[in-house]
Amino acid sequence: MEKEQMLRLLEQKSYRRLREAAGELQPADLAEMLEDMDEKQRLLVFRLMKKDQAAEAFAYLDNDTRSDMIEAFSDAELTATLEQMALDDAADLLEEMPASVVKRVLGRSDPETRESLNRLLNYPADSAGSIMTPEYVRLRPGTTVADAFTAIRRQGENAETVYICYVVERNRLTGVVTARDLLLSSPEDLIDEVMDDHVIRVQVTDDKEFVANEMNRYGFMAMPVVDSEGFMVGIVTLDDAAGVLIEEATEDIQKMAAIAAPPEDSYFSTGVLAHARSRIPWLLILMLSATFTGMIITYYENAFAALPLLVSFIPMLMDTGGNCGNQSSALMVRGLALGEIRPRDILRVAFKEARVALVVGLVLAAANGLRIFLMYRDMRLALLISVTLVLAIVIAKLIGCSLPLLVQKAGLDPALMASPFITTIVDACSITIYFSLATWMFGL
Amino acid sequence: MEKEQMLRLLEQKSYRRLREAAGELQPADLAEMLEDMDEKQRLLVFRLMKKDQAAEAFAYLDNDTRSDMIEAFSDAELTATLEQMALDDAADLLEEMPASVVKRVLGRSDPETRESLNRLLNYPADSAGSIMTPEYVRLRPGTTVADAFTAIRRQGENAETVYICYVVERNRLTGVVTARDLLLSSPEDLIDEVMDDHVIRVQVTDDKEFVANEMNRYGFMAMPVVDSEGFMVGIVTLDDAAGVLIEEATEDIQKMAAIAAPPEDSYFSTGVLAHARSRIPWLLILMLSATFTGMIITYYENAFAALPLLVSFIPMLMDTGGNCGNQSSALMVRGLALGEIRPRDILRVAFKEARVALVVGLVLAAANGLRIFLMYRDMRLALLISVTLVLAIVIAKLIGCSLPLLVQKAGLDPALMASPFITTIVDACSITIYFSLATWMFGL
Repeated sequence: MEKEQMLRLLEQKSYRRLREAAGELQPADLAEMLEDMDEKQRLLVFRLMKKDQAAEAFAYLDNDTRSDMIEAFSDAELTATLEQMALDDAADLLEEMPASVVKRVLGRSDPETRESLNRLLNYPADSAGSIMTPEYVRLRPGTTVADAFTAIRRQGENAETVYICYVVERNRLTGVVTARDLLLSSPEDLIDEVMDDHVIRVQVTDDKEFVANEMNRYGFMAMPVVDSEGFMVGIVTLDDAAGVLIEEATEDIQKMAAIAAPPEDSYFSTGVLAHARSRIPWLLILMLSATFTGMIITYYENAFAALPLLVSFIPMLMDTGGNCGNQSSALMVRGLALGEIRPRDILRVAFKEARVALVVGLVLAAANGLRIFLMYRDMRLALLISVTLVLAIVIAKLIGCSLPLLVQKAGLDPALMASPFITTIVDACSITIYFSLATWMFGL
Repeated sequence: MEKEQMLRLLEQKSYRRLREAAGELQPADLAEMLEDMDEKQRLLVFRLMKKDQAAEAFAYLDNDTRSDMIEAFSDAELTATLEQMALDDAADLLEEMPASVVKRVLGRSDPETRESLNRLLNYPADSAGSIMTPEYVRLRPGTTVADAFTAIRRQGENAETVYICYVVERNRLTGVVTARDLLLSSPEDLIDEVMDDHVIRVQVTDDKEFVANEMNRYGFMAMPVVDSEGFMVGIVTLDDAAGVLIEEATEDIQKMAAIAAPPEDSYFSTGVLAHARSRIPWLLILMLSATFTGMIITYYENAFAALPLLVSFIPMLMDTGGNCGNQSSALMVRGLALGEIRPRDILRVAFKEARVALVVGLVLAAANGLRIFLMYRDMRLALLISVTLVLAIVIAKLIGCSLPLLVQKAGLDPALMASPFITTIVDACSITIYFSLATWMFGL
């Protein structure tokens, strides 16, 4: 089913066939087609589609198209669409709408949905609560496997997954049972015998990245979420957890490249000014702080006035120091994100990085020292550059590994402190080492 | 259940209680405990555990511990463990073992397992085949929902997931049906009516990252894999797809930080020399190429001999250019990885980046020009730095966005060409612009 075919059916007003054709598409593909249509076509196709399919496709649209459609919707239409969506998707959508719209939509929803949405909207943005859904299959202890299937059939229509069911007694989570376990048991078995009563769970206030990492570590399809009193409030499913991990990696990459408040949308749907706004702040800060390195150089003006060759090694020293620091900080940022490294490992990490730095520094110093000696036949110059390299690399790696860990310990985002910031600090250090060694060795 | 408790049971030789206690743990937690034990304790606990639990925990161990255990295993033990593991996990494990061990193990496996493992081992390392499993639930067309449940019970023990079943006729995939659909249908319904016959599928030779992105885009729990003749050969499940995306993000971050052939293990389990080996190659290349920038500077020796202040702006220009290039390349690398940007978008991207660069360049030039004018009361110097900044930023962003796309088009990994490499090229460009403008404006 191609978009062209779809548009032809639309032109021919073959609405029944269009509705059928749309029904056969994956929601993600349908959403892509809708994005490519003009607003009139889009609304027409959307209104022709079955309510549940329309709502599913709606959840896959990019932010721009979605905002356009919401503006064109009547309140009744918007409420109907939201009620067809999974509760967690609906809550995510409401979060991006203006308060007045949210109020109108919630006012029109049925009381149960309204209460659930209100509760979801109140969880902090980075918490487990913000990515969980209250719609899961709930079983009672003391019932049989056959009863469980009846419960799945009754609750399954709305549940986010029917494959992991939770045994809940007076709102307390007492067990977990997979549909696989149920399918492989006999109908008359008691749930209590089939279920696993050692249930790993998370708090509703836990960080969503922690939850996603735990799910990844355990290989879970769903993770139950309890509130501070231990009452079961919902589940996080694997697709949402995977979304968190992918989004987190993207943000880390962007932050490490000095992009502040990375754009929420994809590259193309973010405007030129929005792109510029997200890139200017760090560039400004880093540009002005690099003038500090410049001032250090000015301080040694007499040194390079006497020996201008010194200037030509500045780029090499700056780049190498920066690259070494970045290697360490990138490993830290990623290790922290995946939970492999914790802030309290700082001494262990520093010891390891120091040894790596020595090996790396000696190899690089040997290579460069040899090159300089061969090019300039000046042993003292070769020694100056080699010693500076080793010292700069050790310092760069120590700063590069400890800064992200310290920043994380302070409760801030380690990726923010990464690459460019470290480059600036390391630059200042290596230039200082370089010129003080040079003035001393060459008596300048 | 704490590790201490477990060790106490081991000391007390309460093996039955230990076996029970281990049975209640998650495989991931059990693996972590095994990693912390010494080799003798580890083997003892492993041998005490139920076969299937032991195999599951084994799949979660880190590479070091796993190699240690494999060395200590008898051939019979190794074969038994591998046969208990999911086929795709077993194949991954065999791939890391020496050829002689693989041969011995395969020789001892039953013929069916051997054939499946051999086939899995033959798929290229980055293909869908390398992450798929041939163990899925297969239904026949013309049977009923009740028959499907019987099939799930029969095949479910070995299948990677029982929640997505595939309808296969003469090895050709004709439909897909979820356990949810089956549970919500009546037992006498025909599979053909319940199933979806528009099945999205991938080729066994497709890149595993493509498959993972498609699954993420569609929100699929499993993706069917067919061979070049259209025969169904297996499925990729969401946990493996998520693993690919996470691993890919980690590799991209490391490559962008100039770490060649990123270590396969976690930070701590990689040794100092292995870390050094993965960091030295790019540092060496970049260090030597930075001397090129140094040569450009030497060429303009007379300029900064006459006006030494010029040298102090070198760090600021180099850092800003590098940062601007990195911002663009990071967006490209990530956009390419997530499938949001394609190599053929290069002109569209370049046009967008050029406009972003102009906005960014003008803001930064204004800020820095003003600062320099206020500090030095030298309009010409302020103008020189401002014009250099705008030009350097435009060039940096154009190189930063186009290089990753060109490299991808050439079939290479865009992340390899990212940050540090771009920094080096951009450095050379900005220094050249800077000094040629300076000599011209100041008549040096």
